[in-house]
Amino acid sequence: MSASSSINSPAAALADVPRGLAGVVVADTEVGDVRGREGFYHYRQYSAVDLARHRSFEDVWHLLVHGELPDPVRGAAFAAETAALRRLPEEVTAVLPAIAAAGRGPGSGAGRGSGGGGGPLAGMRSALSLLGAVKGFRPVYDIDDRRRRDDTVVAVAAVPTMLTALHRLGQGLDPIEPRRDLSFAANYLYMLTGSVPDERRTRAIEQYLISTIDHGFNASTFTARVIASTGADVAACLVGAVGALSGPLHGGAPSRALDALDAIGTPDRIDPWIRERVLSGDRIMGFGHAVYRTEDPRSRMLREIAEGFGGPRVEFAVEVERQVEAILAELKPGRELHTNVEFYAGVVMELCGLPREMFTPTFAAARTVGWSAHVLEQARDSKIIRPAARYVGVGAPVVVPQGV
Amino acid sequence: MSASSSINSPAAALADVPRGLAGVVVADTEVGDVRGREGFYHYRQYSAVDLARHRSFEDVWHLLVHGELPDPVRGAAFAAETAALRRLPEEVTAVLPAIAAAGRGPGSGAGRGSGGGGGPLAGMRSALSLLGAVKGFRPVYDIDDRRRRDDTVVAVAAVPTMLTALHRLGQGLDPIEPRRDLSFAANYLYMLTGSVPDERRTRAIEQYLISTIDHGFNASTFTARVIASTGADVAACLVGAVGALSGPLHGGAPSRALDALDAIGTPDRIDPWIRERVLSGDRIMGFGHAVYRTEDPRSRMLREIAEGFGGPRVEFAVEVERQVEAILAELKPGRELHTNVEFYAGVVMELCGLPREMFTPTFAAARTVGWSAHVLEQARDSKIIRPAARYVGVGAPVVVPQGV
Repeated sequence: MSASSSINSPAAALADVPRGLAGVVVADTEVGDVRGREGFYHYRQYSAVDLARHRSFEDVWHLLVHGELPDPVRGAAFAAETAALRRLPEEVTAVLPAIAAAGRGPGSGAGRGSGGGGGPLAGMRSALSLLGAVKGFRPVYDIDDRRRRDDTVVAVAAVPTMLTALHRLGQGLDPIEPRRDLSFAANYLYMLTGSVPDERRTRAIEQYLISTIDHGFNASTFTARVIASTGADVAACLVGAVGALSGPLHGGAPSRALDALDAIGTPDRIDPWIRERVLSGDRIMGFGHAVYRTEDPRSRMLREIAEGFGGPRVEFAVEVERQVEAILAELKPGRELHTNVEFYAGVVMELCGLPREMFTPTFAAARTVGWSAHVLEQARDSKIIRPAARYVGVGAPVVVPQGV
Repeated sequence: MSASSSINSPAAALADVPRGLAGVVVADTEVGDVRGREGFYHYRQYSAVDLARHRSFEDVWHLLVHGELPDPVRGAAFAAETAALRRLPEEVTAVLPAIAAAGRGPGSGAGRGSGGGGGPLAGMRSALSLLGAVKGFRPVYDIDDRRRRDDTVVAVAAVPTMLTALHRLGQGLDPIEPRRDLSFAANYLYMLTGSVPDERRTRAIEQYLISTIDHGFNASTFTARVIASTGADVAACLVGAVGALSGPLHGGAPSRALDALDAIGTPDRIDPWIRERVLSGDRIMGFGHAVYRTEDPRSRMLREIAEGFGGPRVEFAVEVERQVEAILAELKPGRELHTNVEFYAGVVMELCGLPREMFTPTFAAARTVGWSAHVLEQARDSKIIRPAARYVGVGAPVVVPQGV
């Protein structure tokens, strides 16, 4: 009658598994990897930062879901194919005002501002769920690899349209129809603002989007793979991943780092502000990463992009980074604590004209490509991901008190 | 530069973890357990079957989310409190026709009929996501245990109203408003059919609902806990779990077993139908379980309930079970293969007047209580569930082909 007799929890498996499955390998992947000690990450066999520097978002999207970079002809075809999928089905468009209104409900602005109960991530969750039903997404185990990929492409192409429409509706503005003649990145900024962005802003946001497509086996990616392992449809997988991304512990909320810059305010206040926080043990948003022990390679690239824009805001951010690192070296010697992707991502998105509420959703729009690649890979496996738990409650059975 | 240098995949962790995390303990739980060899499962310290025999659905719901069975006064209060939460917010009701219409889209009926791209489970996914936003559910790490529990109770109370409304809308019928004066089980059947069910049907479906609230660390429960471990809101967790449940590998599709009874048709066809399938290696729906090595205790209870109704359909089911077991003993001696929960669950739900399309959603309505208990338990932990993957693709970095 002891819990250890459960077939779910053989004694042999109880040991050696760290809490939260930290470091436990649950899948083989060809999607990419993060090398924390080297400060390096890659998609397939290519450096993610190099991809961001040299290729388009559409090319890298193709790399993730087709497994290879396209040649120029194939790349143009994929760009055209996906651009044609940006318009939402009427059945989804009709419901967006209701979804946007829900995001302004009692929970909006709660938690991380752009996630949680209200706001654009909850809206993305609802709209993607509906899109999957309208488009008739079928269980991944009932369809072939090509059809699965088509479903992921439909979802990724539609996400920017959803997100920008929900944002504009939330502001009392009409959504802007997508344009097929613009790149993924340019069309994203266009749908948000109503103006075609200049080349520098387009390329800056495109590089940010590419750099954030995938990043190891984080909780949202794992969620997508667990759901895919049951054979559920692509929308079910992506909706679950969006849910996980909305959690405060997931990371990826670039607005927090910008909030810290605002709180500091002026260069003369950097030193006392940082010292106070470090000495009281507070976390400094935008610094530190669970995996990187060196500078975050995304941070390095985004800083360069920001410096290309220049201006007092960028100079201030660079100065904050410099002083934080100096103060940490003084007060916490030996700790490798550098800016993470949030720090300069926020700066770059602000330079590109994105409102803060859209920072995490923009991250989510790019990450949907990474989730898709992982769903496709998981769907080629046939083994459900189903771990076990150890019962630690009062021993059963206790006689049920009857009647009442 | 080798993948083994990744901090995500220390070599020490690569070994000893079975595929799909089978048998790997990822959490301590006080919610319950399944003892496969004994044919026994429990919620907290009580036999789940005994709870189904002796208590109301509301009492067991209270046990799961509050951790103890209520006394009569507290039980009545919880029943009244939850009955008052059945009505959906206007913002959700207004969108249900669009969600129901999406379920009749190109994907409806795909896969398992009641899940996948269309149908009620996809509708539940969308409606629950919207409900969470409308109700302002906040990240579980930003609120206290009481507020989290309130959010789960709001969700569980609303699910039957959503599911029955979506079903009726799909049939071209008007949804039926919930009644506060009926029990959870009676109100569920009432909202589906428009008639207050008799005591026998109410109690039969109530026992089925209780028996299916929780069952170990299945993939949907695990999904809910992974999402909760990021601190996301209750709706994000439950929506992810619904997605995982919709996968064909998850199990819990009682309509398939009934489809098999229909395919057999008449008692004289049982023997040749079963032999053909066993000899060709086909799976027989409604038989076999991943964990139980003895009779499924849920199956035993549901058979007794079915036999209480009696009639030719029940006699036929019992005869199919008898002949399947005899033929398996003859052709596959030594294999313990018994009816699982799906077999008699389908029979009981049919006897209670549930249409087949509603079998899996009814399962999901009950399971939402179990997911809720696991979300509440996970939220009291502060460790994100974030395993690792092993990169097995082409070694990186390969130089990115530039230009295009």
